[in-house]
Amino acid sequence: MKNTFLVALLLTASLPAAAQNAAPLTARLDKVSLTFALSPEGRPTYAVQFGSKPVLNPSRLGLELADGKGFEGPLEVTGSDTKSVDESWNPVWGEVKTIRNHYQQLTVHLRQPQAPGRRLDVVFRVFADGVGFRYEVPQQPGLSYFTVQQELTEFNLPANHKAFWIPGDYDSNEYSYTTSRLSEVDTTPIEAIQQKAAPNRIQTPLMLKSDDGLYVNIHEAALVNYPAMFLNVDTKTYGLRSQLVPGATGAAAFLQAPEHTPWRTIVVSDKAPEVLTSKLILNLNEPTKFPTTDWIKPQKFVGVWWEMHVNKASWNYADTSNIKLAGTDWNRLKPNGRHGANTANVKRYIDFAAQHGLQSVLVEGWNVGWEDWANNWKEEVFDFVTPYPDFNVTELQQYAASKGVQLMMHHETSSSVTNYERRQDAAYRFMKQHGYAAVKTGYVGRIIPRGEHHDGQWMVNHFNRTAALLGQNQLMVDMHESVRPTGLHRTYPNWLASEAARGNEFNAWSTGNLPEHETILPFTRLMGGPMDYTPGIFQIKLESWNPAQNKGRQVHTTLAKQLALYVTMYSPVQMAADLPEAYEQHLDAFQFIKDVAVDWDDTRVLLAEPGEYITTARKAKGREDWFVGSITDENPRQQTVKLDFLTPGRQYEATIYADGKGASWDKNPQAYQIRKQKVNSKSTLKLQLAAGGGAAISLKPIGR
Amino acid sequence: MKNTFLVALLLTASLPAAAQNAAPLTARLDKVSLTFALSPEGRPTYAVQFGSKPVLNPSRLGLELADGKGFEGPLEVTGSDTKSVDESWNPVWGEVKTIRNHYQQLTVHLRQPQAPGRRLDVVFRVFADGVGFRYEVPQQPGLSYFTVQQELTEFNLPANHKAFWIPGDYDSNEYSYTTSRLSEVDTTPIEAIQQKAAPNRIQTPLMLKSDDGLYVNIHEAALVNYPAMFLNVDTKTYGLRSQLVPGATGAAAFLQAPEHTPWRTIVVSDKAPEVLTSKLILNLNEPTKFPTTDWIKPQKFVGVWWEMHVNKASWNYADTSNIKLAGTDWNRLKPNGRHGANTANVKRYIDFAAQHGLQSVLVEGWNVGWEDWANNWKEEVFDFVTPYPDFNVTELQQYAASKGVQLMMHHETSSSVTNYERRQDAAYRFMKQHGYAAVKTGYVGRIIPRGEHHDGQWMVNHFNRTAALLGQNQLMVDMHESVRPTGLHRTYPNWLASEAARGNEFNAWSTGNLPEHETILPFTRLMGGPMDYTPGIFQIKLESWNPAQNKGRQVHTTLAKQLALYVTMYSPVQMAADLPEAYEQHLDAFQFIKDVAVDWDDTRVLLAEPGEYITTARKAKGREDWFVGSITDENPRQQTVKLDFLTPGRQYEATIYADGKGASWDKNPQAYQIRKQKVNSKSTLKLQLAAGGGAAISLKPIGR
Repeated sequence: MKNTFLVALLLTASLPAAAQNAAPLTARLDKVSLTFALSPEGRPTYAVQFGSKPVLNPSRLGLELADGKGFEGPLEVTGSDTKSVDESWNPVWGEVKTIRNHYQQLTVHLRQPQAPGRRLDVVFRVFADGVGFRYEVPQQPGLSYFTVQQELTEFNLPANHKAFWIPGDYDSNEYSYTTSRLSEVDTTPIEAIQQKAAPNRIQTPLMLKSDDGLYVNIHEAALVNYPAMFLNVDTKTYGLRSQLVPGATGAAAFLQAPEHTPWRTIVVSDKAPEVLTSKLILNLNEPTKFPTTDWIKPQKFVGVWWEMHVNKASWNYADTSNIKLAGTDWNRLKPNGRHGANTANVKRYIDFAAQHGLQSVLVEGWNVGWEDWANNWKEEVFDFVTPYPDFNVTELQQYAASKGVQLMMHHETSSSVTNYERRQDAAYRFMKQHGYAAVKTGYVGRIIPRGEHHDGQWMVNHFNRTAALLGQNQLMVDMHESVRPTGLHRTYPNWLASEAARGNEFNAWSTGNLPEHETILPFTRLMGGPMDYTPGIFQIKLESWNPAQNKGRQVHTTLAKQLALYVTMYSPVQMAADLPEAYEQHLDAFQFIKDVAVDWDDTRVLLAEPGEYITTARKAKGREDWFVGSITDENPRQQTVKLDFLTPGRQYEATIYADGKGASWDKNPQAYQIRKQKVNSKSTLKLQLAAGGGAAISLKPIGR
Repeated sequence: MKNTFLVALLLTASLPAAAQNAAPLTARLDKVSLTFALSPEGRPTYAVQFGSKPVLNPSRLGLELADGKGFEGPLEVTGSDTKSVDESWNPVWGEVKTIRNHYQQLTVHLRQPQAPGRRLDVVFRVFADGVGFRYEVPQQPGLSYFTVQQELTEFNLPANHKAFWIPGDYDSNEYSYTTSRLSEVDTTPIEAIQQKAAPNRIQTPLMLKSDDGLYVNIHEAALVNYPAMFLNVDTKTYGLRSQLVPGATGAAAFLQAPEHTPWRTIVVSDKAPEVLTSKLILNLNEPTKFPTTDWIKPQKFVGVWWEMHVNKASWNYADTSNIKLAGTDWNRLKPNGRHGANTANVKRYIDFAAQHGLQSVLVEGWNVGWEDWANNWKEEVFDFVTPYPDFNVTELQQYAASKGVQLMMHHETSSSVTNYERRQDAAYRFMKQHGYAAVKTGYVGRIIPRGEHHDGQWMVNHFNRTAALLGQNQLMVDMHESVRPTGLHRTYPNWLASEAARGNEFNAWSTGNLPEHETILPFTRLMGGPMDYTPGIFQIKLESWNPAQNKGRQVHTTLAKQLALYVTMYSPVQMAADLPEAYEQHLDAFQFIKDVAVDWDDTRVLLAEPGEYITTARKAKGREDWFVGSITDENPRQQTVKLDFLTPGRQYEATIYADGKGASWDKNPQAYQIRKQKVNSKSTLKLQLAAGGGAAISLKPIGR
C-alpha cells in the first residue's frame, strides 16, 4: 500500500506548488508506521500501516470552519517537527500500577495558500499499538474566535472488515452491538432510543477485525471543548468519515485560538488482548491538576436501585403525575407505599454493606420530583436538596457513619442541565454537609438547553466542568448517560466511571443484552474508560420479585458469569447490584464480590476475541492476590488458563466459582459450583463455561 | 360595531352546535365594553369598544399546541363566570401612593368538541381604561405537559391608525420609533441590531392613535414562563396577529397545566395623558411575595460609565484581544492606561456622590474579561468575582462606607447566560460580602444557550428567576438588554428598572435618538415599567471629551430637557449620567438632579401627545415637594402649566430650569436659565421649550 502511495506522489510531481511541497512525512514505532502527504489537490492525508499490512489507506484530514475560510484544502506544508518520548507514570487508580508512554511524534505545519494564510498544525503520535493525532490551531493574527462547522477527518479502511457497531444517536449509546461487515452497516432496522441521525452513521469506539488478522479500534482521546466524533460509513469503499455532533444552531464547535481538537485514535494489533491492554488513549490525556488525590477511593457499593428496576419498589413517593417542583407540599402527597428510598429500607442496605465490608450505599429516589421526572422536557424537575418525607437525611447520615459506611448521593438531572447547573453549588454544599463523598449522576431524556445533544460540545463541557467542580469539592462521580469516555479519568481521577453504554439494567425491562454483550463492551465502550455496568445479579429470573410485572424477564447470564464481570469489566467503582435478600441466599458465591479488588497493580488479558470470550487476570493493588474472570457469549466454551502470571515458587489457594453442571443462561442460570485448589505459576486451569456463562477465580497466596 | 356583530351571529343561528352555544358574552366598565363570541366556524373571538367607538373589531383567540390537538377551534362554550372587583393597594415604590384596581371580570370556559375534549378558559378583565385577557389551561385529565407552538390572538383594528413602532427583533428593543400609518409598516429599510424576523413584524408596547381621537396601547402584563408577544401587521386589513418569540427548537413555550399565558392588554382612552397614568398593567401583575421590602431603596446614582461611552476611558484594562478567562494572568497584562474602573477614579465618583447626596456609584469594567467580551458568542467570558489589578475591592468598600455611599455592582453577561447562571450564587455572595446592595446587569449580544433569544421563554424565565434570586438575597437590580417589562416590578419590587429600549447612550456612538424619542418612550416602552434611560447629560457636544473620536457627535437635547427627563421618564433608579467634571461646571443646574425625588405620592400628566410633548408633575413621596418636567420634540413649543395640583392656600417656591434664550438642541444646547418665583394652586406657568428642549421645575412649600 505504501508503495502505491509513493507512486501516486511521483505521478503528481508536476502539480502546482501546494502539491509540490508535499514530500511525504513519516513516523514509526515498532510495527506501526504513519505517513503524511498532501493529495494531488493539496489536501492533507495520512495513512497507517501495521508491519506490512495497511491499517488505513490514505485518508483525508481537515477542518471546515463556519466562515468558509477554513482548512478544507488546498493547504501548504510549511514545515514539520519530530519528537521522541519514552516515559512512564502512575495513575491514581487503574488496571496497572505504571503506564509507559512511548511514542514518536510528527507535527506537520500547514498553511492556507489563500488570504488570510491561516495556520493549522496536525500532530501525530505513533505508539507501538497505534496512532493518535489531533488538529491544533495555533495563536495567530486574524484567527481568534472560530466555529468548526464540520471535521473532514477520514479513516479509509483497506477492506470490508468485520465491525462491532451501534447506531449514531447523538443522545444515547445504550444500544446492543451489531456485528456485521462494513458493507452491511445499516441502522434502519434498529429501534431508536432517542434519535438516529442517518442509516449509515455509527459511534465510536468502533471495533474492527480484518480478514488478515488485524484488530483495529477507532475512537478519540481527551474529548474537551468539542463534540463527540461519530462516523459515517461508506459501505462501498469502506471509508469512514467523521461526523461531529451538532449544537443547537447546527454548528459543531465554538472555539478560540490557541485550541486543539481531541485526539483521533487508531489502536491496532494482531492480537486481540493487546487492544484491551492498550494505554494509548490514557496516554493522550493530560495528567490531573488536582493538588491531592488521596480522597479518591475506588470502591464497591450496594444500592436502593435494582429493586426499582425489578418492580419491587418505586423511585417516586406518590403515584400522582403532573407535579410542580415549586409549590408542591410533599408532606401532603399520598405515599404509594412502594417508595424504595425510605429510611428503614436504606438502613437495611447500610447494615448489609457494613456486614460484608462494602464501602457505600447508593440511594436513588431520595429527593422530591420523581412523580413525573421523565419524558416531559421539563426544566424545573429536581432541586437535589429536598428529601421525600420518608427519607431522613440526618438520621441516615448518623446511622451510616456509625456503621462505617458512606452514603452515595444520586443526582438524576432528567437532562435538564440548565436546572442542574444552577443548583450544583447548593447540591454539592448539601453533599459536604451531609457526609456524602460521591455522587451518581444521570442524564435521562432530552437535553435542556433545548436543541443541544448529550454528545455535543455544550454537554461535553458540562460533563468536564462537573468533574472539575466536584474535584474542587473533593467529591467523586459516576456519570450515567454522559458522553462516552475518552480517557479523561486521567485528568479527573474523581470521575470514577460512566455508564454511557447499554448496562445490565436493560435486562430488567427490555429485550435485554445478548450473552455476547459483555465480550464486546471491553473492545468498544471501555476503551475510553471505566463503566458502571452494575454486575452481580444473582436472582437472574426476575419473576420471583414481582411475578405480575416481570413475567418471562431474566438477565441473560449465569450467576458465575456475573462474578466474572467484576474482573473482565474494569471499573474502580463496582456495584453489587442485586438486592441484599438475593445475596443472602448465596453467601458462598457472594464471597467473591466481597473479596474482589477494585484497584490493580497489574492486568493480563489471557484470552480474548470480541463477541466471543474474554479471560482476564488482575493483581490487587498492593497485595499478592490475583483475580481472574472468564466469560463467554451464547456458546459454551472451555478456556484453558495458564497461571504463569503468579509469582514463581509461591503457593496460592485458588477459589473457583464456576458454572454448575447443566448450567446455561436461559435454562439453568443459577447453577454454580465453588471449588478450592492449591496452584502455582506452573498450574493450568481448565474452565468449563456454560452457554452465556463464566467463571471467577480468586487466588490468594498461602502462608507468609 | 357591536350591532353588526350581533347581526352576524343571528345569521349563523342554523350552524352546528359548536356555534349555536355561542351567545355573545359581554362585560363593561364605564366606557369600555368587551364582547366575546364564537365565530361561525366556532372560533372564539373578542371585540372591544370605547363608548360608541370600536377599539378592536372581532378578533380571533386561540392557542396552537405542538401536538396538533390544541385550541385553534372550533371550540364550544361550556359556561362563563363574572366577577366584580374594586380594591386598592399601595406599591412599594411608584408614581402614586395608592393604586385602584377596579374591573369587571368575565371568564369563558371553552372545550374542544373533538376528543380528548381539552378545556381552555379565557379570562377578561374590563377596566375603565382598557381590557386585559389571558388564556388559562386548567388542571385536567389528559393535558399535563404541553407545548405552545403559536398563539392565535389577534387585535383587529378598525381603521388605518397612526402607529409608533419598532421592528420585530427577537433580541433587541434598542430601535428608534417609526411613526407611520399601519398600512405603511415596513421594517425593511431599518438596520437590524441583531436580527429582524419579518418586514411586517413589530414589537409591543405598540402605541396607536385613531383618526377619531382614540389612544390605544397594546402590550402584555405579567410575562412569566412564556415568550414575549410580537405583532405581525396586516397592512391591508389593519389586523395585528400575535407572534410568540420561538425557542431554539422553534416551539414557543413548554408548559405544564395548570398554567396561564400573560395578560394581553389594551389600554384605551380619548385622552393621551390617561394612557400614561393607566395602572392596568400593574394591576394585572401579582403582588410581591417578598416577606420584607424595607431594604428596597429608590435611588439616584453616578457611575464610571459615560466616560467610556464618550471615549475618555475604557471598560477593558488591556488593549489585547483573544483573552481566555481561565489561565490568564491578569497581573501580567499590559494596562492600556485608560481603564476607567481604577481605584482612584472610583474614589473620585464616591467623593462626588457623597458631596451631592447621591446614593450610589456604579462601576462598569471592574471585573476581568472585558478585553474581548463582545460579539464572539463566547461562553466563558466573565466570572463576576475577579477584579482587575487596579480595582481594589476592599479598599473601595471601606472608602464608600466611610462616605455613606453605596457601590453599585455591574454584571455584564455578554448574553452568555448559562455562564452567568452557573456563577450567580458566587457572584451574589461576593456582593453581600463586599457591601453591594444593587446590581446593574447587561445582556449584550447573542444568547447562550445558542439558539435562544432575549425575548423567548427561556430568557424570560432567566430574567424573572434572577429577580427572585436577587430578592432572596435582598439585592436590587437594574437590567439592561432584558426583555421589555410587563409590570413585574409589582411582583419583584427589587427589580427597580430595565433598559430594554434605546437609551441615552445611543447618542454617544450612533446616529443617536431623535428629539421626539423621549416623548414616545412613555407611551411605549415605559407602559411596562421603569426605564434606566440614563438622563442628565450636560456636556451635550461630545467633542470636548475626545475631539478625535467624538467629532460631530452630540446628544439630541438641550440641557434643560435633560433635567425634565427625571420627571417625564419615570424610574425609581435614576442615573446622573454625565461625568462629575461636567456637573461641576453647572452646579446651579445640577441642583435639580440633587433635589428631584425618585419615589412619588402622586403623578399628574398635564399635557401629552406621543411624538410631540409631555408635561408631567409629581409629588415627592412623603413630602409636599412637587417636581414638573416638560419636554418637546424637535419643535419649539410653549406649554401652559396650571399648578392646580398644589395644595390650595399654600405658597410654594418654584425653581424653573428652562431653556435659555436662543437655545436649541442642535445649535445651542447648553443655554439654560434658572429663575425662582412664588406660586400657589391658582398659578399658571408658561414654559417656553426650545427645539428639542424642555423645562424642569421644583416646587417647595414655603414656611410651615
